[in-house]
Amino acid sequence: MAKDQKKQPRPKAETPKGFRDYFGADVTERKQMLDRIAAVYHRHGFDPLETSAVETVDALGKFLPDVDRPNAGVFAWQEEAVPGGGSGDWLALRYDLTAPLARVAAQFRNDLPSPYRRYAMGPVWRNEKPGPGRFRQFYQCDADTVGSASVAADAEICAMLADALEAVGIARGDYLVRINNRKVLNGVLEAAQILPDQADDVLRSIDKFDKVGRDGVLALLTKGRKDESGAFIDGIGLDEAQAAPVLAFLTSKGADNAATLANLRAAVGGSAIGGDGVSELAQIAEMLAAMQVGADRVVIDPSIVRGLGYYTGPVFEAELTFDILDEKGRKRQFGSVAGGGRYDGLVERFTGQKVPATGISIGVDRLLAALRAKGLAGQETQGPVVVTVMDRDRMADYQAMAADLRAAGIRAEVYLGNPKNFGNQLKYADKRGAPVAIIQGGDEAERGVVQVKDLILGAKIAAEASHEEWKAQPAQTEVARADLVAEVRRILG
Amino acid sequence: MAKDQKKQPRPKAETPKGFRDYFGADVTERKQMLDRIAAVYHRHGFDPLETSAVETVDALGKFLPDVDRPNAGVFAWQEEAVPGGGSGDWLALRYDLTAPLARVAAQFRNDLPSPYRRYAMGPVWRNEKPGPGRFRQFYQCDADTVGSASVAADAEICAMLADALEAVGIARGDYLVRINNRKVLNGVLEAAQILPDQADDVLRSIDKFDKVGRDGVLALLTKGRKDESGAFIDGIGLDEAQAAPVLAFLTSKGADNAATLANLRAAVGGSAIGGDGVSELAQIAEMLAAMQVGADRVVIDPSIVRGLGYYTGPVFEAELTFDILDEKGRKRQFGSVAGGGRYDGLVERFTGQKVPATGISIGVDRLLAALRAKGLAGQETQGPVVVTVMDRDRMADYQAMAADLRAAGIRAEVYLGNPKNFGNQLKYADKRGAPVAIIQGGDEAERGVVQVKDLILGAKIAAEASHEEWKAQPAQTEVARADLVAEVRRILG
Repeated sequence: MAKDQKKQPRPKAETPKGFRDYFGADVTERKQMLDRIAAVYHRHGFDPLETSAVETVDALGKFLPDVDRPNAGVFAWQEEAVPGGGSGDWLALRYDLTAPLARVAAQFRNDLPSPYRRYAMGPVWRNEKPGPGRFRQFYQCDADTVGSASVAADAEICAMLADALEAVGIARGDYLVRINNRKVLNGVLEAAQILPDQADDVLRSIDKFDKVGRDGVLALLTKGRKDESGAFIDGIGLDEAQAAPVLAFLTSKGADNAATLANLRAAVGGSAIGGDGVSELAQIAEMLAAMQVGADRVVIDPSIVRGLGYYTGPVFEAELTFDILDEKGRKRQFGSVAGGGRYDGLVERFTGQKVPATGISIGVDRLLAALRAKGLAGQETQGPVVVTVMDRDRMADYQAMAADLRAAGIRAEVYLGNPKNFGNQLKYADKRGAPVAIIQGGDEAERGVVQVKDLILGAKIAAEASHEEWKAQPAQTEVARADLVAEVRRILG
Repeated sequence: MAKDQKKQPRPKAETPKGFRDYFGADVTERKQMLDRIAAVYHRHGFDPLETSAVETVDALGKFLPDVDRPNAGVFAWQEEAVPGGGSGDWLALRYDLTAPLARVAAQFRNDLPSPYRRYAMGPVWRNEKPGPGRFRQFYQCDADTVGSASVAADAEICAMLADALEAVGIARGDYLVRINNRKVLNGVLEAAQILPDQADDVLRSIDKFDKVGRDGVLALLTKGRKDESGAFIDGIGLDEAQAAPVLAFLTSKGADNAATLANLRAAVGGSAIGGDGVSELAQIAEMLAAMQVGADRVVIDPSIVRGLGYYTGPVFEAELTFDILDEKGRKRQFGSVAGGGRYDGLVERFTGQKVPATGISIGVDRLLAALRAKGLAGQETQGPVVVTVMDRDRMADYQAMAADLRAAGIRAEVYLGNPKNFGNQLKYADKRGAPVAIIQGGDEAERGVVQVKDLILGAKIAAEASHEEWKAQPAQTEVARADLVAEVRRILG
């Protein structure tokens, strides 16, 4: 290595651009959250699936049209074509957990139970330009049911999502799962006699409902509107009679599910597909009621339009409804933490057979951020008890103390740095978030005692107490070595 | 997508060559094992670290010398150099958890506590030719202490490894952690007056000690030997007097640590570095005794030579000592499940500063295989209670039953496939490993009862009972709907 260093400059110690490392509580808090979600999924009969991080670009599929740049959006590389070795295939890191599910559902279709309920949690990778809070590796947490055309699968997943949010600590009333249905929208388009080549434009307009409201969508559907910058956005050119059912759809949320469903039936008029869609929502509402899941948790809400273009049936979105303060100190709602819906064609591109599927994806980082904002994560940051080293020849004694503490279930460690400077040891204990430091010098060893220093109380005294009080050091007590564990346990409560 | 399919053949639904997917119990068993290990590491003051899967090839380092093929052994790709976007850097998937630790220890050296105890668990990737049981993505589970030169760190890690093995279910007596020391070997080489340019050959010879034994190593050190195929392997040409200390070192294991240490002191003669090495081992033995870790768990054993070439001080290896049957039904020892040791230069290539470090790596797949071989993993494969669907119009009723069971903490699901063929539903329940099936037809619904079918007892009866007994169907009972949960709970015990 010394030789290399003469020839080459030192490498930079840097996380690659757009990637990040997770330390300590970052890891354990996310893990605890995902464990709680997994327990809910498990109780609902969902099985875990962990696919390889690497897929063939061919199987990932979404990027195939761009044959010249198969790595647009994904991290991809070509295997060396070696006889008996590399295949020359293009490989890539998965960009979500749905594409691998599609591959697995096709590959193992004869072995998996059908319907197949599975959950998956893990990192995915996106080859995108990184930005603030935008990383090229992040966690997803998905649950999907593959092979069931029944809306019972959709109802179950929405109820399960509500349970999962409560399991991680979001109180009832602080979240709402909203359900809409693409088929109802299709019925509305039919009722409004929207031409097929106008449908995409209409979808784009209603996607702006969140931002521009009812009148904004009306303008976009008809004669156009000025946006915030003053630029004029052309309208689609529908007449007001055509726009009316679309607006009726978007604003059909009533006082309860029954009222909403009645409004939707009116909006779809005589459309068969629209009628099917409303019936599906009615069935979902009935099933949720049977499962004792009230409209305060999961509700039919046609104003939820995100994903309507992508999904083929019911669409779900979970929002956190409590206020948080943004970076400028203004109150705003936390917003969406999960979304999903029903989709076809998951397995079709592999096998030619349509396989119905429905699922949700929880935004892991967003949900964790929400838990932190509510003070529901981040408590368990207490460090270990630190056994300091006064006499480096008696390391075995100090290790015996740490071993005794650990045997009693108490997190503990011996200071392993250079023990010469005792101040450094206390600084280390502070950096570790240690609640207690153990000290035993030669004279204490002779007398068979140890000093037990309550660092949390000590910090409080240092911050609040007068110099005299501080000098009295009530945060440090001397106990017999045999009473070490009991004293630490007393301090830790 | 329909358009694409006309133009393009269907993609193959295949896991990429050398990769695998993990289903159900494969995921949960590994997770349970790693959770138990993490709890032990946590109790010892180690903090979790999760680095990004992607590193710059530059930071990974090991592969730098091969500038023409930076991806030899790793999966690597070059970022597109785009102004304001991709850097043109070579990126790669991490091939182990130590190289990322080196990068993190250098990058965050001013923020991390020093010494820094960290554990890491996760997949790593190797661009190697796959083979039977050899995958290109696999889990590693490491614990390292960075920044401590004290052998107290080594003793602690060995004791922790023993605790971790017991925590996952390996009984005391079924494993042994063995410790050797590279410095002792260096002392032996000095005592034997081995020339520097012979040292590598001597290391290679003693690495064969496991396979060829004492006499084999003697031959390799001196005049050479015939191997199994009859081919002659040249010896190094030492005389027997030079070979003697090396052999004394390898065979110095005594009845207890004290005897082993006495033998080692004799083997290193007057070598200063050898004396240091023996002293280190003596300190480790003393510390282990202080931590109440007996030689039945962690022992000084100079016959452990694996890794001696790589590490710079103490070297560790954990072996499982119970017998298993190999694929030909022969008894053999399970063998090594973890290894590690002390190494320098971890951070040095980044900063120029030597930072001492020591650590272990557990072979996750091997340890899990051992637990399965001992029947210590794989029990929790019981599926959910399956609520069958006799009447598809009463889906809400069936979902209410599943919800009641789940509210009581019982894993339960409704059959979501096409309910037309009831036999398919029972086949599904069987495939799911369901312990109980719930059945309610129209007449049962009218009478307010459900059929509860004990599938485990049913399978037993089907296998053992006469046709008459089978027809009597004692494994199926009718209970009031209100007693559903109680009855299922009774069956599940």
